[in-house]
Amino acid sequence: MTDQMQYITLASRPTGAPTPDNFAFETAPIPDPAAGEVLVRVHYMSLDPYMRGRMDAGKSYTAATQIGETMGGGGVGEVIASNAEGWSVGDFALGMFGWASHALQPAKALRKLDPNVAPLTATLGVLGMPGFTGWHGLMEYGRPKAGETLVVAAATGPVGSMVGQLAKSLGLRAVGIAGGADKCALAVDTFGFDACLDHRAYPDAKSLRAALSDACPNGIDIYFENVGGKVLEAVMPVMNAYGRVPVCGMISWYNAGGLGAGAETTMTVPALWRGILVNHLSVQGFIISDFFHRLPEFIQDVAPKVLNGQIKYIEDIAEGLENAPDAFIGLLEGKNLGKLIVKLV
Amino acid sequence: MTDQMQYITLASRPTGAPTPDNFAFETAPIPDPAAGEVLVRVHYMSLDPYMRGRMDAGKSYTAATQIGETMGGGGVGEVIASNAEGWSVGDFALGMFGWASHALQPAKALRKLDPNVAPLTATLGVLGMPGFTGWHGLMEYGRPKAGETLVVAAATGPVGSMVGQLAKSLGLRAVGIAGGADKCALAVDTFGFDACLDHRAYPDAKSLRAALSDACPNGIDIYFENVGGKVLEAVMPVMNAYGRVPVCGMISWYNAGGLGAGAETTMTVPALWRGILVNHLSVQGFIISDFFHRLPEFIQDVAPKVLNGQIKYIEDIAEGLENAPDAFIGLLEGKNLGKLIVKLV
Repeated sequence: MTDQMQYITLASRPTGAPTPDNFAFETAPIPDPAAGEVLVRVHYMSLDPYMRGRMDAGKSYTAATQIGETMGGGGVGEVIASNAEGWSVGDFALGMFGWASHALQPAKALRKLDPNVAPLTATLGVLGMPGFTGWHGLMEYGRPKAGETLVVAAATGPVGSMVGQLAKSLGLRAVGIAGGADKCALAVDTFGFDACLDHRAYPDAKSLRAALSDACPNGIDIYFENVGGKVLEAVMPVMNAYGRVPVCGMISWYNAGGLGAGAETTMTVPALWRGILVNHLSVQGFIISDFFHRLPEFIQDVAPKVLNGQIKYIEDIAEGLENAPDAFIGLLEGKNLGKLIVKLV
Repeated sequence: MTDQMQYITLASRPTGAPTPDNFAFETAPIPDPAAGEVLVRVHYMSLDPYMRGRMDAGKSYTAATQIGETMGGGGVGEVIASNAEGWSVGDFALGMFGWASHALQPAKALRKLDPNVAPLTATLGVLGMPGFTGWHGLMEYGRPKAGETLVVAAATGPVGSMVGQLAKSLGLRAVGIAGGADKCALAVDTFGFDACLDHRAYPDAKSLRAALSDACPNGIDIYFENVGGKVLEAVMPVMNAYGRVPVCGMISWYNAGGLGAGAETTMTVPALWRGILVNHLSVQGFIISDFFHRLPEFIQDVAPKVLNGQIKYIEDIAEGLENAPDAFIGLLEGKNLGKLIVKLV
């Protein structure tokens, strides 16, 4: 243990895709916990698409990160000093530690982890925020019924792979979309999707739509929306009447540089709106952080299936805090394979 | 009674706004009812915005009208010949009689009306399809709660005025949007809206949005969507978290000439989609014809309130079948004041 901690701040706001110079690597003395606080040595930190939104100024679903502020995010780590009742050195904790080697946190903001129950990293992916997002969105807003067809993009990511596997376990046809033949093979072979389309193989929404129509001979009943862009445009005309569209994200637009840049879609607002009307669609935006009261229910349902191998997951682990910016930039380009995590210890 | 009937067919498909030459006035011998059928002399026919969609080729929420086919629509009339059990000459009926002086219909497709219970015309508006649309959309998808704020456009129309009055009766703040100062005064004075904005007084979505923000100091919880266009664009940024958006129509785009023409909005698809995500909006398209099983419930709830004057309604009655095309063209331009009906007898 050094007496300095390392952390990464937002140095400047990106225009379009983030670049390494949007981030600054900084050091500071390791602080001591005040009353009610613990000091955590971060072992693993999570990198997630939503972090891109926080790099922009202005209202998002979470507050914007300020210039000079540490990049936020979830992580797991070990308590190395405690000034809080119920917490001891050596305890493991899940919390919003940010992009940092160490974090001082109010104990009440942390969740204690038993590393013998599940791997620590699982609490950042399959049993954490992304898996919970997939589970809540599908079960609550997707209202899946056996025999229906579901489509989800980023099919090998931690949200998409959860959605696809849950859908399969409930008797749906699950069609994934992913970037690259390797990911598509993984979606089918490991996660059990009935089919997976490589969106890079289709130059436009029209050609992707034709492939989707083939892969979904009975149409699409649930489109779990996490990408937007070309995929949304391709999916809409294939939706069945009374379809459901849980909306948890739109990664294809996160780098589009603000609201005005209609990246990757030629669909108009009237066309989208008319599709919702004509097909009686139910579209529900949601942010998983509003539903943490349901987390125990999720864990109870899904953890046994993860531990017995019924629900599979894949992690892509980068090494070292200094590599977090490059790993994050790659995430937005779809370079990761599975849940992206940075290992710090 | 003449032995010829008159009817209006679709002569050609409009590009953009319909013109009189899209319609043809025709005559034919009055037919005799076969077994199970009745012959109806139409007294009043309904003109509704959805009819514009059926004039286009291609999939809408109802089948497209074919060239040469009689324009469809609801009406009320008197049975003048019956070959069906339970129906007698002199009975009054509600049915899909089309733009026609007479209609031959299977008796099972008709609903018998008692002209002593409510005015015949009410079954085309406040107690018919438009009123039912407002009631079902608000109660089922709007999920209104006292103290919330609702916005609806076409506020003096049969849908908007129902939505606004129901919202007021449930303790919501109701803000209308309408085209013209006279309609706005009517919305407030007759239908009890708390405020009504004349969208013609605001040249763009931005200025309308500023006025909406003033009129909705606590934001918008329910946007009952029946117009799209500039109003939708103005409303979206004013929506509160967990807002609800029942979508029953988008009249501002009906004349836009197909899906590609993004009439009257500068909002992009990513901006719309992001608004749904960030504000956890619940957007639900619906077509009222799917819910006719709930009609008795609607009638039971609303008819007493109409009859005792608690729910008010206004009708705009044109005279003569030959004037239906002009009246309909005016409807799409917002020239009507209240539910538009054509009186034939």
